[in-house]
Amino acid sequence: MDIKTYIRTHEKEILEDLFSLIRIPSVSSAADHRPDMQACALLWRDILLKAGAERAEVLPGTGHPFVYAERHVPGAERTVLVYGHYDVMPADPLDLWDSAPFEPEIRDGRIFARGADDDKGQTMIQVAAFAYLVSEGLLRHNVKFILEGEEEIGSPSLEAFIESHREMLAADIILVSDTSMLAADLPSLTTGLRGLAYWEIEVTGPNRDLHSGHFGGAVANPALVLCEMLSKIVGPDGRITAPHFYDDVLPVPDAERAMVQAIPFDEEAYKKAIDVRALRGEEGYSTLERNSMRPSFDICGMWSGHTGEGAKTVLPSKACAKVSCRLVPAQDHEKISQLMADYICRLAPDCVSVKVTPLHGGQGYVCPIDHPAYKAAEASFTQAFGRKPLAVRRGGSIPIISTFERLLGIKTILMGFGLESDAIHSPNENFRLDIFRRGIEAVVGFYTKF
Amino acid sequence: MDIKTYIRTHEKEILEDLFSLIRIPSVSSAADHRPDMQACALLWRDILLKAGAERAEVLPGTGHPFVYAERHVPGAERTVLVYGHYDVMPADPLDLWDSAPFEPEIRDGRIFARGADDDKGQTMIQVAAFAYLVSEGLLRHNVKFILEGEEEIGSPSLEAFIESHREMLAADIILVSDTSMLAADLPSLTTGLRGLAYWEIEVTGPNRDLHSGHFGGAVANPALVLCEMLSKIVGPDGRITAPHFYDDVLPVPDAERAMVQAIPFDEEAYKKAIDVRALRGEEGYSTLERNSMRPSFDICGMWSGHTGEGAKTVLPSKACAKVSCRLVPAQDHEKISQLMADYICRLAPDCVSVKVTPLHGGQGYVCPIDHPAYKAAEASFTQAFGRKPLAVRRGGSIPIISTFERLLGIKTILMGFGLESDAIHSPNENFRLDIFRRGIEAVVGFYTKF
Repeated sequence: MDIKTYIRTHEKEILEDLFSLIRIPSVSSAADHRPDMQACALLWRDILLKAGAERAEVLPGTGHPFVYAERHVPGAERTVLVYGHYDVMPADPLDLWDSAPFEPEIRDGRIFARGADDDKGQTMIQVAAFAYLVSEGLLRHNVKFILEGEEEIGSPSLEAFIESHREMLAADIILVSDTSMLAADLPSLTTGLRGLAYWEIEVTGPNRDLHSGHFGGAVANPALVLCEMLSKIVGPDGRITAPHFYDDVLPVPDAERAMVQAIPFDEEAYKKAIDVRALRGEEGYSTLERNSMRPSFDICGMWSGHTGEGAKTVLPSKACAKVSCRLVPAQDHEKISQLMADYICRLAPDCVSVKVTPLHGGQGYVCPIDHPAYKAAEASFTQAFGRKPLAVRRGGSIPIISTFERLLGIKTILMGFGLESDAIHSPNENFRLDIFRRGIEAVVGFYTKF
Repeated sequence: MDIKTYIRTHEKEILEDLFSLIRIPSVSSAADHRPDMQACALLWRDILLKAGAERAEVLPGTGHPFVYAERHVPGAERTVLVYGHYDVMPADPLDLWDSAPFEPEIRDGRIFARGADDDKGQTMIQVAAFAYLVSEGLLRHNVKFILEGEEEIGSPSLEAFIESHREMLAADIILVSDTSMLAADLPSLTTGLRGLAYWEIEVTGPNRDLHSGHFGGAVANPALVLCEMLSKIVGPDGRITAPHFYDDVLPVPDAERAMVQAIPFDEEAYKKAIDVRALRGEEGYSTLERNSMRPSFDICGMWSGHTGEGAKTVLPSKACAKVSCRLVPAQDHEKISQLMADYICRLAPDCVSVKVTPLHGGQGYVCPIDHPAYKAAEASFTQAFGRKPLAVRRGGSIPIISTFERLLGIKTILMGFGLESDAIHSPNENFRLDIFRRGIEAVVGFYTKF
């Protein structure tokens, strides 16, 4: 049976499995979802066994458990390790979803749900391709799967797990489907990722919330101080102002900049899609360079004082922010984490005290485009999507890719099938069914060409 | 029976009534406390009837109800109108309270509870003094009470209520116990209050929360833009930067500045009490001038993006802040409200859209110190506290004082008995029992001297 026929005849059961996974709200960042993490891991184990794994189990780590599965092919010369994650981002704000985030719904040819793309849907592409190859007797390589439950919180247990399972995870190449393509008609393979550093800042002024009438004007307002500090971190030229921040940032080679300029990009459509009148970023770089090849600074969350109903006249005791930097491959995330923490503390005036806590981080990555596995991926994408994929660097971070390279010495091919319109990490996350099907074809193609 | 004996013999029942009032969480800003507002109003009605009111009733307004009570004295030449409020601030953050906010507890000679001072405790001082005068046949003036349930949210219904009850509320002087003294051994009467203007700012960037990796660096972060805007509102000299903001601010007369300098004030103790290393405010003014005679700007609340557990990597769609200005008497709060709203909108760059909503406001007030009622208050404070009270301007706002003057043409005497250590609007609000007793003596003294 060819892969197109296989998908047609098996799609209902593939989607049933995916929907069962989605219905488990495996939000890794919230302590009360711990039982869901375990349930989701167990369900993946069962699905992998059904797909053709000879061995599949849920293995404990220091945090949420791992799912490991494998199938050996007699005489195989190569081993492929597939990485995915079964945890998802929180679904809030819930009121912006058009359907319940953990009740998958198909509308307009798309699956709407938290995890529909990131990363339950994309991982299911890998598993479905594997099931096809097994059922048709076409599998030529050993295959291993490792799924973790902490990708969205920075994979705090993964490094220790890899270190204690080096032999089990040994492979020739790693496949990860957790990135996106430029567009449905513009297939691409991700060849670079940004690193990440993430901090929580707590500014404390007075030891309690004060009456803004009795103290206002005489006592520094910690929320205003936090605003002043944060507004100094990015200069008017869009560059991060911390000394030595750019020390390890290599200039983008002209050849790469030319390649980015060759990517068809409609800035008006980009603005319209997110509904902004104007864009903003580092001077001297285009939008596509800014969001992929250059570092960035963002406030991910911020809170202080009275955030409820009504007009409480209070001078808050504390103001907090969660902030992050996206880093480019040559920047060391631990060095930046320390450098920025020190800088933020130095920005604080005497009238407040400041605590900066690093929450997580990860290294950037660059993928070699002359690797045989990359060539195989390129050819399989060309076949599945009808067009040679562009090699592009992307702005997101998958810190574990560099961890795999550092600890196992294995390169990773980022076979991502997401689209910007999938709204991952946002309300109404979705995944196009036509892309889902072509993704399975592309992965099958990879195994036959590698 | 003299007043000291009366307090000694009746204190238990006076406090029982006060505690019953406190146990009703009459938080005016939260919709789910609406039944508590009604219950608290009804209880005040019953307490006023018991104290000697001939008529006491709960009257509807456009929001939370009013409590009105009165007693006529045959042949009385003057009428005293007592104003108080039965609503309280929210109790959050709850985890910072040492005892439950709505379960009054006496520790170290203080009543600990939300409303112990502001304004259930202070209003009870007025009612207890009234009850004494009635029971001893010493009342020489007609007395009226008007208690509202919306003071902490800006008294939105009061103006319409006064307009439709002018005759009922007619009086020669208004007494309000809702301010504080400089210290327990430094009695004072408030002769000035600041006005208030309060806004909610909503900054909108992209139409949904974005993945900070895919968009960070290319799309303006609305939280960062909000920080930039807010940090521009107060200049490095501590002055508000909005054009024309100071147009109506009269210079503080040298005589008044000299009076402020005469107030014993220990800046080190002030800093220690709120646990800050340094103070901050408008250049050229002392702390006591900054928090009473000069305008101020504060962020009362602020929120954006992910404020929960963990490290969500998101570029938020929206960022919001609740901000307020304290105003000095000559500044028109409506003019400032418009002027600042326009200014804040102009501070917004093209990459975001901004909505500024005025939430409430009120006019400042200056009290004449040569008024016979002020003289009576001064004499009664001297007797009760053993020292002539200082006349001082305070930083808080009681917008309704200027409303009374404008609509009824009546001056108000601010007979406040609070202390800074009472922590009103904060966790562990409390009220000293010794001050509570002397307060009753002082109010009794007022009625006999006026």
